Amino acid sequence: MIKAAILGYGNIGRGIEWAVSAAPDMELTYVFTRRNPADLLIKSSAKVVNVTDIEKYMDEIDVLFLCGGSATDLPEQTPKYAEMFNVVDSFDTHARIPEHFGNVDAAAKKGGKVGIISVGWDPGMFSLNRLYANVILPEGKDYTFWGRGVSQGHSDAIRRVEGVQDARQYTCPVPEAVEAVRSGKNPELTTRQKHTRECYVVLKEGADAAKVEAEIKNMPNYFSDYDTTVTFISQEELNEKHAGIPHGGMVIRTGCTGWNGEMKHKIEYSLELDSNPEFTSSVLVAYGRAAVKMNKEGMTGCKTVFDVAPAYLAVQSGEELRAHLL
Amino acid sequence: MIKAAILGYGNIGRGIEWAVSAAPDMELTYVFTRRNPADLLIKSSAKVVNVTDIEKYMDEIDVLFLCGGSATDLPEQTPKYAEMFNVVDSFDTHARIPEHFGNVDAAAKKGGKVGIISVGWDPGMFSLNRLYANVILPEGKDYTFWGRGVSQGHSDAIRRVEGVQDARQYTCPVPEAVEAVRSGKNPELTTRQKHTRECYVVLKEGADAAKVEAEIKNMPNYFSDYDTTVTFISQEELNEKHAGIPHGGMVIRTGCTGWNGEMKHKIEYSLELDSNPEFTSSVLVAYGRAAVKMNKEGMTGCKTVFDVAPAYLAVQSGEELRAHLL
Repeated sequence: MIKAAILGYGNIGRGIEWAVSAAPDMELTYVFTRRNPADLLIKSSAKVVNVTDIEKYMDEIDVLFLCGGSATDLPEQTPKYAEMFNVVDSFDTHARIPEHFGNVDAAAKKGGKVGIISVGWDPGMFSLNRLYANVILPEGKDYTFWGRGVSQGHSDAIRRVEGVQDARQYTCPVPEAVEAVRSGKNPELTTRQKHTRECYVVLKEGADAAKVEAEIKNMPNYFSDYDTTVTFISQEELNEKHAGIPHGGMVIRTGCTGWNGEMKHKIEYSLELDSNPEFTSSVLVAYGRAAVKMNKEGMTGCKTVFDVAPAYLAVQSGEELRAHLL
Repeated sequence: MIKAAILGYGNIGRGIEWAVSAAPDMELTYVFTRRNPADLLIKSSAKVVNVTDIEKYMDEIDVLFLCGGSATDLPEQTPKYAEMFNVVDSFDTHARIPEHFGNVDAAAKKGGKVGIISVGWDPGMFSLNRLYANVILPEGKDYTFWGRGVSQGHSDAIRRVEGVQDARQYTCPVPEAVEAVRSGKNPELTTRQKHTRECYVVLKEGADAAKVEAEIKNMPNYFSDYDTTVTFISQEELNEKHAGIPHGGMVIRTGCTGWNGEMKHKIEYSLELDSNPEFTSSVLVAYGRAAVKMNKEGMTGCKTVFDVAPAYLAVQSGEELRAHLL
């Protein structure tokens, strides 16, 4: 059995807890927290321990899932713990991946461990599908659409607007854009043409709805480049209808082959997820298995989904995989 | 530059020739044939050589693409040439993969080479997507639909019916079955419920249409388990409207996560291909690059798509991949 541990018990940490329980070859031994362990109620029978004591458990953990945020937690945690454990994270700040990779690589090599970063669905499964589609159809064009799904960052941005009590933002692909891509027209699409933003907003008492709406729609980076709709609803309706964290999207590559480019091809990968964090956690757990297996074979250093041969992700032997999934 | 060679100049061989020309890091040096080389007209400037002389070229070829058939060519050719060259084949006789793997593995290890077998889209990209979807959603159900596309084997079977001059058979997914799967209903589907078979048939002069139609529809293994339609057309219409070899299909996995399985997820991968052999060849060429890179790192033996880390497929460095595709 692979001994798994979690650092950070938020949405991703709870998702990992379930996904490890569903894995026949893994058991969850520890949940590490920055909080008082006595205050943390978890679902499983793993031990809850304060993270300051984590070094004591080096021999009892095969893989540590790092479930903090990309902004401040992971840039510090992943290199730090990659020296002691095989680790997996879901680092998703794209511009900082090279730096993060370098830091984790140095630490993991020093400690003789494997650290797999930027795991999830985007970056993660979407990245893989972009890569596979690109190597097969070098003459072609990629499109990624996200949604319909909840963007936590955009929901937070709305909540910071004066007069807003609560909010939920959905990112939605524009159906006409998706159809144009699928038809093989290779359209050039602006930001506005690809996605719309639906905002469900609960106002504070006495707030000016028109002012709030204008402020949201004109917010640079977040909303001003999009066709944005703002719908005011009650807190009860928000709680009832918008409590989930669904997401999804699609990666499409259209391209051609042949001496005159006469043969057209379309590769499409799509996800529809009731729970973004639970799906992400399930991807992380599969890569946690890979980290352990790769490290057992003597590999060390930082890896991404591009560096992991698919067979490492599976419980089954190569023989079983060839017999049943090839 | 990777020096590539082809054995067998049929549909796949011609597709490889184009795909190598589209690869910035490859050049085609030789095309080996069992025919008289002088009789073989190829598109590129590669040299055409009789296969009996192939051993003389061991030092001039980094990867050999084996483009024969799975029935009799590849079971013999792939082990034979895997001892001399890094090789890639598209072996697709599912039941014989374990045996083929064993033979190629022994030969490739003996010769210090890498042999990648069963490459293409199914087996190949569909297999990969079954594996990725299974490791992410262990609690779920897989569905593979093929088509709408031309089945060469079924077209051949029709041509063997007495009174048939020519034929083309399309395998088509049943739209209602696809919808039931996508909706997450996890239906149990019979062979008949999943696919229909459309046959376009040219009769020989004086043939009995009703008899031919009955014989096709009742043919065991090929047609009797399916709802089959037979449409009689002229040779001119067949040549004009059914000359292409399109194919495609989809791999769908629906599953759930969470302690009560309350969160549903759908992963779907689909292909729409104007040319089955050209797309297959493009996949083979990417895996040819991987075979060369893996062998340079000291790996030997038989591999499938499950054993190849995605980064090996790409022309770009790991750094470039992380910056642009992750």
